[in-house]
Amino acid sequence: MNDKSKKPQKLKARLPRGFVDRSAADIRAVNEMTAKIREVYERYGFDPVETPLMEYTDALGKFLPDADRPNEGVFSVQDDDDQWMSLRYDLTAPLARHVAENFNDIQLPYRTYRAGWVFRNEKPGPGRFRQFMQFDADTVGAPGVQADAEMCMMMADTMEALGIKRGDYVIRVNNRKVLDGVLEAIGLGGDDKAGARLAVLRAIDKLDKFGPEGVRLLLGEGRKDESGDFTKGAGLNAEQIDKVLFFVGIKDYAESAVHLAELVAGTEKGVEGVDELNMIRSLVLGGGYSPDRIKIDPSVVRGLEYYTGPVFEAELQFAVTNEKGEKVVFGSVGGGGRYDGLVSRFMGQPVPATGFSIGVSRLMTALKNLGKLGQDEVLAPVLVTVMDGDVESMGRYQRFTQELRAAGIRAEMYQGNWKKFGNQLKYADRRGCPIAIIQGGDERAAGVVQIKDLIEGKRLSGEIEDNAAWREARVAQETVPEGELVTKVREILEAQAEDRRRAG
Amino acid sequence: MNDKSKKPQKLKARLPRGFVDRSAADIRAVNEMTAKIREVYERYGFDPVETPLMEYTDALGKFLPDADRPNEGVFSVQDDDDQWMSLRYDLTAPLARHVAENFNDIQLPYRTYRAGWVFRNEKPGPGRFRQFMQFDADTVGAPGVQADAEMCMMMADTMEALGIKRGDYVIRVNNRKVLDGVLEAIGLGGDDKAGARLAVLRAIDKLDKFGPEGVRLLLGEGRKDESGDFTKGAGLNAEQIDKVLFFVGIKDYAESAVHLAELVAGTEKGVEGVDELNMIRSLVLGGGYSPDRIKIDPSVVRGLEYYTGPVFEAELQFAVTNEKGEKVVFGSVGGGGRYDGLVSRFMGQPVPATGFSIGVSRLMTALKNLGKLGQDEVLAPVLVTVMDGDVESMGRYQRFTQELRAAGIRAEMYQGNWKKFGNQLKYADRRGCPIAIIQGGDERAAGVVQIKDLIEGKRLSGEIEDNAAWREARVAQETVPEGELVTKVREILEAQAEDRRRAG
Repeated sequence: MNDKSKKPQKLKARLPRGFVDRSAADIRAVNEMTAKIREVYERYGFDPVETPLMEYTDALGKFLPDADRPNEGVFSVQDDDDQWMSLRYDLTAPLARHVAENFNDIQLPYRTYRAGWVFRNEKPGPGRFRQFMQFDADTVGAPGVQADAEMCMMMADTMEALGIKRGDYVIRVNNRKVLDGVLEAIGLGGDDKAGARLAVLRAIDKLDKFGPEGVRLLLGEGRKDESGDFTKGAGLNAEQIDKVLFFVGIKDYAESAVHLAELVAGTEKGVEGVDELNMIRSLVLGGGYSPDRIKIDPSVVRGLEYYTGPVFEAELQFAVTNEKGEKVVFGSVGGGGRYDGLVSRFMGQPVPATGFSIGVSRLMTALKNLGKLGQDEVLAPVLVTVMDGDVESMGRYQRFTQELRAAGIRAEMYQGNWKKFGNQLKYADRRGCPIAIIQGGDERAAGVVQIKDLIEGKRLSGEIEDNAAWREARVAQETVPEGELVTKVREILEAQAEDRRRAG
Repeated sequence: MNDKSKKPQKLKARLPRGFVDRSAADIRAVNEMTAKIREVYERYGFDPVETPLMEYTDALGKFLPDADRPNEGVFSVQDDDDQWMSLRYDLTAPLARHVAENFNDIQLPYRTYRAGWVFRNEKPGPGRFRQFMQFDADTVGAPGVQADAEMCMMMADTMEALGIKRGDYVIRVNNRKVLDGVLEAIGLGGDDKAGARLAVLRAIDKLDKFGPEGVRLLLGEGRKDESGDFTKGAGLNAEQIDKVLFFVGIKDYAESAVHLAELVAGTEKGVEGVDELNMIRSLVLGGGYSPDRIKIDPSVVRGLEYYTGPVFEAELQFAVTNEKGEKVVFGSVGGGGRYDGLVSRFMGQPVPATGFSIGVSRLMTALKNLGKLGQDEVLAPVLVTVMDGDVESMGRYQRFTQELRAAGIRAEMYQGNWKKFGNQLKYADRRGCPIAIIQGGDERAAGVVQIKDLIEGKRLSGEIEDNAAWREARVAQETVPEGELVTKVREILEAQAEDRRRAG
């Protein structure tokens, strides 16, 4: 503690912006949730593989999936050999590095999963943190869309394993190649049109926000928003716009399939993309997944700029009330797609890959909304109170505590300043302890302990307003020989559990 | 993938020095181990609380517990408001920040635990990484050594919960205050002697490395090592040295207690320290922990520079063979102690605290040595092979796979290039798949599937040298109607499990 003398002024305890501490309830909820996800992934033959939090900056590349986010949004440090390292911003780029680095030892196709922290060095906002958790699954070295179809089925199974009812979720599937075909069909193919294609991608990315009429403006001349600000459009003509909007507006894929095939006929990418969508549809139907669970849906436009083939999104369809008090659909809890270019950056050969990423805290919020987490709440410990501080008495309190623990009962001996007994009961109350054990000098002489049922006490005192007063007077209390402590505590805990069951 | 066109040269895939990827086996072993630790901590009334990986640099302070490590050894970045942030180097400093920041909302004593990654920006070496995991438990706001005694009992219970036999581990306890008393008794008390005290602390820290005779030299004039390098000593005289060596050389505390009490009599710290050690001894004996499990041992000197009161160390006592082929005791897997100054840096008041930290990968190595991890090995998936690539056939393979999964059986459909069937069997072999499912055109027409028992095949071919040849010829194989697929697979898996049980 030598440091203290050098810094006499008081330090301020504060977290950097955009970072948060995690409570016991949150940690337990995440653990419960990720355990269920892991079980599904394991059943699908995926194994865990993890990378460290730091990578060489050049190995991460500039692949942030969201075009709105700055490419510079990473935390970077320079190593003592002058090389730049960064905290990973997602789990995909490090996996690509891992596969490329260990290519000769890895048996392809390589199915792996991982949960981990990722970092974004950007302005934090409500629900937008600089450290957050993702849970990813990836198949590397599988060229066919069977692997993509499987991702979708695995996500549907994951949603159900988490207790989300059929109908409350849907996995939507689109394909970047079909959009490429549509763009080629309206004359936006070729390297020289890359800028125009990007403008279209960014316009349709606003479908959720502005609706088809807003996107129509953005695809054409441009759009003026409510504040009068004008966004320049992609400059398409009416016919071109209609074709793009037809594509992203398809509601029933089966019904529109023929028309779509006509639209992209003659474009290599488009035909390939439609074939792939049809194959995925057929595979998931074969696996027993009807369109209410996995749906081909060309309106999935998020991430199309990043992915190279099929794109997926897991959407929760039940209504929640937003901060403005409006009923809205909960929305996306994860997404993914095929990223055939990411591993091959390191290799002299193409390495196909597809993956899915779940936003852990967003999914957790959804499950809490549905009441699907935290049902098995952890009981607070039984409190062994301290009435006397001499070595012999302390030894006894400690022994009671250890006996309870050895019997598998969560227990603790009070560790604060024991001289104020009121503090001990206040502690038990704030901690939610179910039972308090008390032994003063008289009880010790008689070889007995008092056992207070704090929950029963609470119930009995339901009508009493003064919290400070009721406890001493009203708690249910029994005196038993020391040797019956564990048996009696177990009995009371069981009675309390029964009460909870009856209360539903 | 726009990035690719900008960087035509091939990127090198490599991890920064001192960072490692984690394999499935390692991840599963850590999860199995931490789940058992967590269970013990929960039973002791501890709750999980976690902090983010980044903190303001000033909040971390310079409290690296090991004096040999550079204080500058952290990874730091500057935020856009010019404040410096660092990746945490342990879990204790962030907990202190968390408690101070939320002091009004926290009910003391505050018992919490957490596992997490910590970072050291230093030269990596064998077994020395720049990112590693610690598992900590801390009690904040408990002034008495009851809390320290409890830490020791919890560690003993943890060792046994992990399958480490009584006698194979010991929790050693010392007290910084007793050493302070000894130093005062030999005339090294007072602020002006801080430098001399530090020299003594650093000399006895080498007890493990150089033995008592080496430390005697370091406490006196100095020590010349084998290469001829001379380390200047602390300059104590023979009588002073004898007293220090008596203290750190105590083997049987009970036997030496009277002599030790005499040595420190008249020093406030020393008397307090001896009282605390006696209280801890009495409490752990009261809890049923004999000295073969929790031992008062003044030779515990690691970390004495950092801690303010009791110091603990969990040591594994079984022999392992080191890299030189020598039999050595496995040694420390964790340690801790009382750090009363760490929270109060932020506060206008003292806040006592005590904690224990387990080095996760070191403990895991120990458990692997003992054969106490990975017994419930995860079975590789059943492989559904692909003989035909048309949509209808693929749909069937997918359906078989989903039926197996729905029955809780780990299964996957081959996702690589299916046209080379040999690749599929090679994949199954390298992956360790227990069973392969095969259906070609003839079988499909007959509505049957072939089921190959790959383990049985392996056993039958025990004498065959040529791995490439045996599989086709010798594997045990059955043909069953499609409808009996799941039943038959389950039957074979059960027979394989029975084989493993019989093989021990």
